[in-house]
Amino acid sequence: MRNDHRKVNELREVTIETDYVKHPEGSVLISFGDTKVICNASVEDRVPPFLRGQGKGWITAEYAMLPRATEQRNIRESSKGKVSGRTMEIQRLIGRALRAVVDLDKIGERTLWVDCDVIQADGGTRTASITGAFVAVVIAFGKLVENGTLKELPVTDFLTAISVGVLPEGEEILDLCYEEDSRAQVDMNVVMTGQGEFVELQGTGEEATFSMPQLQKMLSLAQEGVNDLVKLQKEAIGDWSDVITGKQVSGAAKES
Amino acid sequence: MRNDHRKVNELREVTIETDYVKHPEGSVLISFGDTKVICNASVEDRVPPFLRGQGKGWITAEYAMLPRATEQRNIRESSKGKVSGRTMEIQRLIGRALRAVVDLDKIGERTLWVDCDVIQADGGTRTASITGAFVAVVIAFGKLVENGTLKELPVTDFLTAISVGVLPEGEEILDLCYEEDSRAQVDMNVVMTGQGEFVELQGTGEEATFSMPQLQKMLSLAQEGVNDLVKLQKEAIGDWSDVITGKQVSGAAKES
Amino acid sequence: MRNDHRKVNELREVTIETDYVKHPEGSVLISFGDTKVICNASVEDRVPPFLRGQGKGWITAEYAMLPRATEQRNIRESSKGKVSGRTMEIQRLIGRALRAVVDLDKIGERTLWVDCDVIQADGGTRTASITGAFVAVVIAFGKLVENGTLKELPVTDFLTAISVGVLPEGEEILDLCYEEDSRAQVDMNVVMTGQGEFVELQGTGEEATFSMPQLQKMLSLAQEGVNDLVKLQKEAIGDWSDVITGKQVSGAAKES
Amino acid sequence: MRNDHRKVNELREVTIETDYVKHPEGSVLISFGDTKVICNASVEDRVPPFLRGQGKGWITAEYAMLPRATEQRNIRESSKGKVSGRTMEIQRLIGRALRAVVDLDKIGERTLWVDCDVIQADGGTRTASITGAFVAVVIAFGKLVENGTLKELPVTDFLTAISVGVLPEGEEILDLCYEEDSRAQVDMNVVMTGQGEFVELQGTGEEATFSMPQLQKMLSLAQEGVNDLVKLQKEAIGDWSDVITGKQVSGAAKES
Amino acid sequence: MRNDHRKVNELREVTIETDYVKHPEGSVLISFGDTKVICNASVEDRVPPFLRGQGKGWITAEYAMLPRATEQRNIRESSKGKVSGRTMEIQRLIGRALRAVVDLDKIGERTLWVDCDVIQADGGTRTASITGAFVAVVIAFGKLVENGTLKELPVTDFLTAISVGVLPEGEEILDLCYEEDSRAQVDMNVVMTGQGEFVELQGTGEEATFSMPQLQKMLSLAQEGVNDLVKLQKEAIGDWSDVITGKQVSGAAKES
Amino acid sequence: MRNDHRKVNELREVTIETDYVKHPEGSVLISFGDTKVICNASVEDRVPPFLRGQGKGWITAEYAMLPRATEQRNIRESSKGKVSGRTMEIQRLIGRALRAVVDLDKIGERTLWVDCDVIQADGGTRTASITGAFVAVVIAFGKLVENGTLKELPVTDFLTAISVGVLPEGEEILDLCYEEDSRAQVDMNVVMTGQGEFVELQGTGEEATFSMPQLQKMLSLAQEGVNDLVKLQKEAIGDWSDVITGKQVSGAAKES
Repeated sequence: MRNDHRKVNELREVTIETDYVKHPEGSVLISFGDTKVICNASVEDRVPPFLRGQGKGWITAEYAMLPRATEQRNIRESSKGKVSGRTMEIQRLIGRALRAVVDLDKIGERTLWVDCDVIQADGGTRTASITGAFVAVVIAFGKLVENGTLKELPVTDFLTAISVGVLPEGEEILDLCYEEDSRAQVDMNVVMTGQGEFVELQGTGEEATFSMPQLQKMLSLAQEGVNDLVKLQKEAIGDWSDVITGKQVSGAAKES
Repeated sequence: MRNDHRKVNELREVTIETDYVKHPEGSVLISFGDTKVICNASVEDRVPPFLRGQGKGWITAEYAMLPRATEQRNIRESSKGKVSGRTMEIQRLIGRALRAVVDLDKIGERTLWVDCDVIQADGGTRTASITGAFVAVVIAFGKLVENGTLKELPVTDFLTAISVGVLPEGEEILDLCYEEDSRAQVDMNVVMTGQGEFVELQGTGEEATFSMPQLQKMLSLAQEGVNDLVKLQKEAIGDWSDVITGKQVSGAAKES
Repeated sequence: MRNDHRKVNELREVTIETDYVKHPEGSVLISFGDTKVICNASVEDRVPPFLRGQGKGWITAEYAMLPRATEQRNIRESSKGKVSGRTMEIQRLIGRALRAVVDLDKIGERTLWVDCDVIQADGGTRTASITGAFVAVVIAFGKLVENGTLKELPVTDFLTAISVGVLPEGEEILDLCYEEDSRAQVDMNVVMTGQGEFVELQGTGEEATFSMPQLQKMLSLAQEGVNDLVKLQKEAIGDWSDVITGKQVSGAAKES
Repeated sequence: MRNDHRKVNELREVTIETDYVKHPEGSVLISFGDTKVICNASVEDRVPPFLRGQGKGWITAEYAMLPRATEQRNIRESSKGKVSGRTMEIQRLIGRALRAVVDLDKIGERTLWVDCDVIQADGGTRTASITGAFVAVVIAFGKLVENGTLKELPVTDFLTAISVGVLPEGEEILDLCYEEDSRAQVDMNVVMTGQGEFVELQGTGEEATFSMPQLQKMLSLAQEGVNDLVKLQKEAIGDWSDVITGKQVSGAAKES
Repeated sequence: MRNDHRKVNELREVTIETDYVKHPEGSVLISFGDTKVICNASVEDRVPPFLRGQGKGWITAEYAMLPRATEQRNIRESSKGKVSGRTMEIQRLIGRALRAVVDLDKIGERTLWVDCDVIQADGGTRTASITGAFVAVVIAFGKLVENGTLKELPVTDFLTAISVGVLPEGEEILDLCYEEDSRAQVDMNVVMTGQGEFVELQGTGEEATFSMPQLQKMLSLAQEGVNDLVKLQKEAIGDWSDVITGKQVSGAAKES
Repeated sequence: MRNDHRKVNELREVTIETDYVKHPEGSVLISFGDTKVICNASVEDRVPPFLRGQGKGWITAEYAMLPRATEQRNIRESSKGKVSGRTMEIQRLIGRALRAVVDLDKIGERTLWVDCDVIQADGGTRTASITGAFVAVVIAFGKLVENGTLKELPVTDFLTAISVGVLPEGEEILDLCYEEDSRAQVDMNVVMTGQGEFVELQGTGEEATFSMPQLQKMLSLAQEGVNDLVKLQKEAIGDWSDVITGKQVSGAAKES
């Protein structure tokens, strides 16, 4: 039924390659099938003006596509002299999502710049960006812990994102590729923590609407995808994985 | 518990004044408490390049705030020479939402420009914009039907939007004012049709997360708010209300 | 003879509604017939770089139109990424005019931002803006006096503006509406103080010219209009009116 | 009394050099004392979109200063990426003034571009620009008549501009240099035809005001200056001078 | 003597990976040591306005760096809203160089867009871009020949670029890495054809100068580097290599 | 053979007029035949951020053309809101070239702004700009020495620039006018010191290439032109000429 014969709850092949580029503190190449995104995390020793003097940090994200990441060549936003609404929406989403699992009070007056550059696009670039950016961020903060700049890893949980949707035939599916995304009636991006809490939920009917039962099916698929992605993130970040898992537990304890 | 003594499921006072400005085909001043938005719908007899020659129309929305709609004066986006990410995100949302309840094939090669200008802001400007814009759009299309340009009202259902959220105390509430929005842990905008279908769902943890039970409580509050808002829209658009209700039924029939 | 049957020296109905929007220190909705402008005055506790450290203040004005304030929808200047020459010319005029009746040495290192936003346009938007902005400015400064920030009202005289012109039939008229403005051969904006001194005089032949006798007739009409407008301003600002009148006298004495 | 010992009604030395640059159809270097402006008129065989198909032409003007035309170096507007309000105001003034003495119906669907570039500034750059631009325009149109493109010179009268003002000492003066302009209380630019009709009148109190008698004295000084400037323009344009004078007479006849 | 122990006439390790990204007609990842550039060639079926109707094509290049391609993160040019002088200079160079070895008359009214995106920078990004772009261009044109769009490969010779320079110690070297480039007194980029003709020569003294003998030594080193690079290009493009070599001969014959 | 009957090694008539505009510290009008450029050097008492606190200065250049410097009118870059690639390339070249003969350590924390404004263009505007800018810079620094701001002239050698090229007929020529530049196959700009060292070499095949023997002939022509230009510069700067010549010698001594 799906053009690449996946099951409705099956992710595309996901790979996470770390230390992809040499200069950034954290650098990851993440692939969801043919979607490939370079996620670089850079540490800057100052914060934006609105935060100065408060002793806390900030995370800001930027997102872009190479002109020929897509079937048709896109005009560069630098040539147009302005950033599109779609780009701004995505980079605001990525930054917001990451800030939900980072304790900004523990990073000092530093900014973490997260650059997500899509080199090949086949649907799901924003969810791949978030999932890969999380890994780059952990690696960057890990280096700051290792060199003594930070006392502990300021990351409170895993963070992944995945798309779900409803095809015109009425079927709910996980991890839409571009062809599926183009014809889907409903498109939803779910950003979730490793503990299964929602960070962000963005569901859109594309000249269509969706009902409560459809919403529930989609959320259930998303939960399955998130579980798979967290496993891959754990492999990519190695030992830091246990540190984060430890924080999850104390986090749950704190709430109760 | 709420600073204006509302119940958790209580809307602020909502008023919809039609024919507010004389030039636009549809013009509405909508108030949600101290939030006041002018929603103007303008008809243009051509479509953007990507739709030319296809015999169908388009709806595009623009959103702006007067510089002193807020407690602190904002710099005009025209002075800055560019539109902010937040503005772009909101105007894309408004346009997308309206397109979900308008049959673009029935409006010919026309663009409906919807301008939402916030003259006073106290939280919920994007949901007030969508709720008011729907009324302006119906009035504008109504005029095109009355003067014979269109054969029938191309609107397939009511469209309203409302915010819900979770306060730091853990309480879920409906229709957040600015003070509540500032301290809420979770902020969710729900765009719904008169038949209770979702058009758009945007939930965001503000450096926080939310669980499935919290999501369900919020959606239930939103449904209550939507029901109240549809009643107010019906009063504002008068006779066109029955025309839309008639389409709802046939719409449901078509789906079955 | 005039399309709305006014006499040549008759203003349109002018109304001034104060406290129109809640956040600004001074907020006015002024109407000249169908021309409606929101004038907001905001106080900022710093001055532009060129004035820093001199112990004096500044007044700066911004002017904009809602896209559908006019018969044809205008593209937003924020979307175009730049402000038009006409807009810049008007906002420079408004700021300059207000500075002529405010003693900038008495307001400390503060900037008064005056925002004039046209929500409906039918000719004379710049003169309505100045006339309404003056009221907003007095109210804003009045609040600073009342809360002890300023020792006295730093306003030295009333300030009003009105248009005059010459119709193609050769008749000089006062307060041109859009229809008259479109066909007038000569268009002149007169900014005057309550004592009848000129602050600004801008007369333009529209692919035409005007003679000295025509100029004198126009100036005489403008003086009549100004007298009427000052009465309306006095009603709008209440008790501050006498304070300003008191300054006029001492001002005249100082000059002699 | 004046820092360069001129009488109150005395112009600075004014020179008009024609054919200054080789490419433009009309090219003039005009000097008012140390103020030097290159005025180039270029003919383009098409009109802006709003005039297409109407068989008439258009005149548009651009104004700029070399960065070091002034005492302090100015940042180039091309580097800033936008044109200042002052520049826009001046170029709109120059274009409007020229259109008042050119019969746009007689030039076909052509645009006359008038570029006024100030290479050295010492006050009065906008009036020098208009006075010089008129000469460049006559020369450019003269060439079009000579080569048979136009049947007759489409210029209906002479056009000059001059500044007048009021010094702090209360004296009214003609043709302000920069030093005088800086300290003047009132600054007025008068654009007049050869027959003494007003085209544009722009008087501004610089944080000051002016009375009716002061206005009348200034206008009388301006008339003197205009008479002198028209003589210089006649010398610069040679034989075309009589053609224009001939049109003045028939113009007056038409009006009576 | 060189920090990576290369001989003065030794290139860094150069690799050319073809078919790197799936959408573009030609796609290459080229590495010069730690400098890595993605070169994508896209075919568009129209030409810029200045070439329309002439039956010939065009090649245009764009160049950019990922923000963290470098040691310090760079602000994106899309965020700044304008392209830097350095970027413009490089993309003009790449386009000009490619046009020297492509017969634009033989590609019809098509534009070849060449995007060079640096993902990791360690000196020599512009020369790597040209060398890699050539391969991407040949592959893209090869596809057009294979699918019958073009009759023959419109490429007249090989094209490579390499940097040479003079170290402060006075030694001339080939293929400068970033560390060498930073301290070099002279930096020269040489663009050459496979037959050893110059296409572009850009030598710059960095607050220094260079003599004729130094120029000659640098040109000799460049020739060595070019010979090595052509060999690598031949491997990358496979069979098309002989087609180009065939054209070289006939080209030489034509000139004699 | 050349359209103005010059010999292949003959410059156009070159004139250098000093003190052309009154405000700048150094001001020159330079002509190469019909190419005329105003070169103004301005001293500013601060440096760009990247140099602050290092006790050394900077030279930055800007280049522009009047819209009608050319046969066809060009749109102003200020109207377009951005500076073209060509302009940026030229102004970077001018700045870089001047910095090669100025000892930035000896000018303190000052910026020298060099503005090259082309008022009439007939080929070779960038080389005329450099040659004229050098004279303006020497005059500006000379004034700083004379008024005691600087201890000595911080100029280490003469600096001139000239174009050479290859015509389609195969002839190498010196100092191309616009007509020659348009049809030349190769265009090379050579920036040289008075001692015959290269500062910058930019040779470009215009959809063509050039061989080593052609390069050598062009460089030999350039050397002849530079010798002639240095003589003219010496006349223009008078006594400062000997000061620079004195530095040349010691410079050579230092190197040996």
